[in-house]
Amino acid sequence: MALIVQKFGGTSVGNIERIKKVADRIIETKKQGHDVIVVVSAMSGETDKLLNMAYQITDTPDGRELDMLLATGEQVSIALLAMALQAKGQDARSFTGQQVRIITDSAHTKARIREIDSERIFRELNQGKVVVVAGFQGIDENGEITTLGRGGSDTTGVAIAAAIGADICEIYTDVDGVYTTDPHIVPEARKLSRISYDEMLEMASLGAKVLQIRSVAFAKKYNVPIHVRSSFKKEEGTLVIQEDSSMEDIVVTGIAHTKNEVKITIKGIPDRPGIAAKLFEAIARDNINVDMIIQNTSDNGLADISFTISKEDGKKALKLTEEIGKELGATKVLFDPNIAKVSAIGVGMRNHVGVAAKVFQALAKEDINILMISTSEIRISCVVEAKYGEQAVRALHDAFDLANKKS
Amino acid sequence: MALIVQKFGGTSVGNIERIKKVADRIIETKKQGHDVIVVVSAMSGETDKLLNMAYQITDTPDGRELDMLLATGEQVSIALLAMALQAKGQDARSFTGQQVRIITDSAHTKARIREIDSERIFRELNQGKVVVVAGFQGIDENGEITTLGRGGSDTTGVAIAAAIGADICEIYTDVDGVYTTDPHIVPEARKLSRISYDEMLEMASLGAKVLQIRSVAFAKKYNVPIHVRSSFKKEEGTLVIQEDSSMEDIVVTGIAHTKNEVKITIKGIPDRPGIAAKLFEAIARDNINVDMIIQNTSDNGLADISFTISKEDGKKALKLTEEIGKELGATKVLFDPNIAKVSAIGVGMRNHVGVAAKVFQALAKEDINILMISTSEIRISCVVEAKYGEQAVRALHDAFDLANKKS
Repeated sequence: MALIVQKFGGTSVGNIERIKKVADRIIETKKQGHDVIVVVSAMSGETDKLLNMAYQITDTPDGRELDMLLATGEQVSIALLAMALQAKGQDARSFTGQQVRIITDSAHTKARIREIDSERIFRELNQGKVVVVAGFQGIDENGEITTLGRGGSDTTGVAIAAAIGADICEIYTDVDGVYTTDPHIVPEARKLSRISYDEMLEMASLGAKVLQIRSVAFAKKYNVPIHVRSSFKKEEGTLVIQEDSSMEDIVVTGIAHTKNEVKITIKGIPDRPGIAAKLFEAIARDNINVDMIIQNTSDNGLADISFTISKEDGKKALKLTEEIGKELGATKVLFDPNIAKVSAIGVGMRNHVGVAAKVFQALAKEDINILMISTSEIRISCVVEAKYGEQAVRALHDAFDLANKKS
Repeated sequence: MALIVQKFGGTSVGNIERIKKVADRIIETKKQGHDVIVVVSAMSGETDKLLNMAYQITDTPDGRELDMLLATGEQVSIALLAMALQAKGQDARSFTGQQVRIITDSAHTKARIREIDSERIFRELNQGKVVVVAGFQGIDENGEITTLGRGGSDTTGVAIAAAIGADICEIYTDVDGVYTTDPHIVPEARKLSRISYDEMLEMASLGAKVLQIRSVAFAKKYNVPIHVRSSFKKEEGTLVIQEDSSMEDIVVTGIAHTKNEVKITIKGIPDRPGIAAKLFEAIARDNINVDMIIQNTSDNGLADISFTISKEDGKKALKLTEEIGKELGATKVLFDPNIAKVSAIGVGMRNHVGVAAKVFQALAKEDINILMISTSEIRISCVVEAKYGEQAVRALHDAFDLANKKS
């Protein structure tokens, strides 16, 4: 007998028929003798509907009131799912974030979970009930309703699993697992049976939208095994777990890619200590996250700096860079929105040499020019022209034979 | 400067445009220097939409889960209204029933308010904020979400007004006050400027749907003046207040009428002590409310009993009566759904004689046969054939000159 958290996303509870199917799935698990805690999102479309009403009133809704509004979406789902379970003869009870005391900080619309009171959950489980908890929401110390940001229900699921010491947190979604790369780009992409937290974090932050990145970080911190699987199919999905030695045999686990960045280049600035600091301090002050940075120096004592940031911060960062450029006497500031970042990810890189070279060769073979490079212990990323992005993904997937290797 | 509770019904906050208009109205009151606490219902149609989803899942949804579901309707309204107030420059905050601790008993879907913590409300008012509270909902002692039943937001408004000692509870609705009778039946019906709690209770229980009856009983108990008025017009509506001596000059204040009852007659039962008790005990055991009862005896030692009950209990009561009738050897059980009850209501009746006679004469003049009669200290009710119901209302409205008298 195991203690299992099952999280169902908005598509899985998108209408009454689907809610009934989810109830069947939960009851199946319960009948196998397990204790089940369920976390649900709002019915798909509901959060957007609520947001749309808010924005009809004001462009800048107050965070507290927005959370008050959005938290209703999950409250509807949990009540309906509890009813569906009861209607099928399974005793069940729904709980808001407030009722199971999911305590967060007070950062409305992007709150972070601090603690969860597991006592209430265990009391209900001990009576044979399925416990249905609203995802995405909590309360702060003053009893104000908070929400965790988009995808926050994943984090709720993992946080509850951590708080009650669950054996596993199953994340049911509309894809059937984590793939070696985006199957829309590479049809022979293979579903991974296992992936480590660190690899998943790199995959998630690079645009594989299967799991919310914060939930993976949470799972890693508390060592909660996650099972990502389809709501609509029976077969197993992908386990996201602590790295073990067998994983190191695989050099590259997956290829991620994103088109969501832009590149800014500032040319002809003095090559002196403190110049780069001045630029990136200004950008950090505006809460803009810089991803990759490269600097070249030339013989005339001047330097060029290029960096990438997310598309949404692009305009703001360009303006800032132009201002600083004027101060520093830069010769030029360039803005390039047509880039793609392609990454090879795998914990095996730690113990294998020549991975970078293999990446560069694979791209060179396709005549794809590399604009920027960055690496971490388990990742090699290359920025290329946007039009070569998908071609680069296919080349790397092929070079590391990901369609065939077993993870 | 006054302390004012303003309650807005579902129609008043039925869409975004109306919510903005309600915000204007609140700000107007606030600008006059008053402190304002607002109670809102769910947007019109919302509660039915939620109920409909529940009934797609099961015919018998659990009360606790139904309350969990329905409470979201008001939570959406309060958040949107608070945003609308803020967008217009008025500081405001929304609160669920849980957050201002509207403590109820645990009777899900028809809970009764036990107490309200006014401390939180005053803290916000003292900071110059408009306090927006979700109507219809509360929590029980275990923190379970409860709802107060249809029209419960009126009761929330009055209960909050009582708890904080408000000067008045304004109920904004889609009619502009309480009329001497239904204007659809008598076009010259007049809007009353004042009516006593007791009269309003009689009017409400007889089918004048302006105010939820429980809210009036609450207002009477705590002596909270209610002002029923239109959300869409500026002019004053009707004050529902404690009876004063001037009201006694008016013999009849209004004419109420309902078609929502049926009549059951059991004939030829033994005219012995305890027979009626046996019948009505059985009916009470099934939670059926009996309204009027009359008993005739004949020379042969047998009796006939007629009584009225609400239409929805009709079938159940008929079945019960037939069973008891068999036991008692009744000769016949009759069922009459075609009745109407017409009532003249006024606190002045206490000090005036001949009111009943005037009622009977007015009906006789129209050749309307009276089937049953019942009276209270401030009411005379007659059951007539359904087809004469509206004619009877017009006759009584006319007989007491209600179109002209000033209340």
